[in-house]
Amino acid sequence: MMNKTDDKAWKVLKSEYLSREPWFTVRKEHVQLPNGNEIPDYYILDYPDWVNVIAITKAKQFVLVRQYRHGLGYTSMELCAGVAEKEDPSLEISARRELLEETGYGNGNWSLLTELSVNPGTHTNMTYCFLATDVEKISEQHLEATEDITVHLLTTDQLIELLRKDGIKQAVQAAPLWKYLAENHLIP
Amino acid sequence: MMNKTDDKAWKVLKSEYLSREPWFTVRKEHVQLPNGNEIPDYYILDYPDWVNVIAITKAKQFVLVRQYRHGLGYTSMELCAGVAEKEDPSLEISARRELLEETGYGNGNWSLLTELSVNPGTHTNMTYCFLATDVEKISEQHLEATEDITVHLLTTDQLIELLRKDGIKQAVQAAPLWKYLAENHLIP
Repeated sequence: MMNKTDDKAWKVLKSEYLSREPWFTVRKEHVQLPNGNEIPDYYILDYPDWVNVIAITKAKQFVLVRQYRHGLGYTSMELCAGVAEKEDPSLEISARRELLEETGYGNGNWSLLTELSVNPGTHTNMTYCFLATDVEKISEQHLEATEDITVHLLTTDQLIELLRKDGIKQAVQAAPLWKYLAENHLIP
Repeated sequence: MMNKTDDKAWKVLKSEYLSREPWFTVRKEHVQLPNGNEIPDYYILDYPDWVNVIAITKAKQFVLVRQYRHGLGYTSMELCAGVAEKEDPSLEISARRELLEETGYGNGNWSLLTELSVNPGTHTNMTYCFLATDVEKISEQHLEATEDITVHLLTTDQLIELLRKDGIKQAVQAAPLWKYLAENHLIP
């Protein structure tokens, strides 16, 4: 992904961590551009990689979750998503774990659909978006104390209506959903 | 967009700014969930709203830009994008200004295509994605000292190829592009 001979790459003159908390690891960097100009205070957010999943049941229903998001102050319909933990043997295993914990759905056929960044200017991490077809309800939810998540099954028509009215606001989730619908010619 | 009677909304017990720099305004909040559980250190990033634009010429070419992104350490093809300044009379005017400055393209027919969040958990702002058709080259670029941006015209086929290989990594740009291609049935 990196281009080592990148003619536009910035040179880091100084780098210091402002915070190293688990959900807030921030570096302040003094950088120099190829044209010689400098930015003395460029902020970089270090997060672990993230995963999300378009999970579709055998009855062709999309498994979505609804939860509160404190940045926007808004409870939103979303794809199931979470963090790729360092201990996870693969990104797919991270995504399978998140789907099972948040919704109780599992099994099915999995593939990586797309790899995206929430903001390549400020974030070091990527979000890996999976497609899981023929998933089944195989357990109850297993939520953490700080999670308040309800599960919702949507038909393709309901999902398209939700997307069209900007009901899925998280770009890293809207992108793989539109991609899936476009590539499978599911938009009427 | 906000739901005032939201049963999942968190209560803010304490809120303090850690930084108020232009590109790094951060609040640390102690919050309480409806189930009584508390999170003592939840971080919120306050940014102004952002805009981007799918600009298409009369010859049906997509106007893209290529620039270095220091978070990923990567020079990427992107939609023209920028900040909605407080002084701007409208979001469309912000987007028109960014397109003109970064590419020299203007005029055309403009509409709002979708409204997205880069991360509704941590970001307070939205990104407004415009569609501009029949744009024309009407001036030279007017770049800031810290901008190193080249302009690239892509056919629809080239754009689809780029998207399919994850060449547009910024989710808030991939989402409106896939939406545009899906809604207009342009995917072969």
